[in-house]
Amino acid sequence: MEINIPEVVAEVTEQFMRYEKALTTNDVAVLDELFWDSPHTLRYGATEILHGYGEIKAFRAGRSPAGLDRTLLRTVITTYGRDFATANTTFSRAGSDRIGRQSQTWVRLPGLGWRVVAAHVSLMAPQG
Amino acid sequence: MEINIPEVVAEVTEQFMRYEKALTTNDVAVLDELFWDSPHTLRYGATEILHGYGEIKAFRAGRSPAGLDRTLLRTVITTYGRDFATANTTFSRAGSDRIGRQSQTWVRLPGLGWRVVAAHVSLMAPQG
Repeated sequence: MEINIPEVVAEVTEQFMRYEKALTTNDVAVLDELFWDSPHTLRYGATEILHGYGEIKAFRAGRSPAGLDRTLLRTVITTYGRDFATANTTFSRAGSDRIGRQSQTWVRLPGLGWRVVAAHVSLMAPQG
Repeated sequence: MEINIPEVVAEVTEQFMRYEKALTTNDVAVLDELFWDSPHTLRYGATEILHGYGEIKAFRAGRSPAGLDRTLLRTVITTYGRDFATANTTFSRAGSDRIGRQSQTWVRLPGLGWRVVAAHVSLMAPQG
């Protein structure tokens, strides 16, 4: 299994950045597009636990569009073969001293393209 | 791509449970075995951000073995083809009202077997 085939990394990075832009501009249509429409899809958010695409979509629809801007600190995208990838990043928000962490597992699904199949976001208190 | 081929789900579940037992008994050798020995491997913990297998291994070696027991609440293991999987679970610990969330991405690496390539653990305050 080849790790980090350059064109695969480029594809995933492009979708990752599409997601990032959609997140910070609250482009709900793109956020919905990029998560796999499946009951298996799951997202652990900073303050929510969402099982299945339906719960994730409902959360997006009800989310406040305020205060979404953030700065990515360290991003690691790793691909495994041509159809599987992980994208992890740390981030900060103005006015907060907590460090955010966002983990996504991406799969290239036949007929669909790259989709997030599982995600986890959390905020970590500053360490002493 | 076939989702949740039963024998693949069984394989990943077996390794997931090996990891769980090793975590709660602080069996560092098994914990080290089950993470991919690679600079790409990454683990966001409840209070730490670890990039690369070396940082993860050092963290395991220095971790207190006290208070590791926990109860799994809802576990979702999903496999994609024969070599990729996600394992997500929520958990609780006696004496804490916070809900834990653990996300792992597993890859079956040639010559090695199933390994965690990325993980994220966080504790969420009770909601509402």
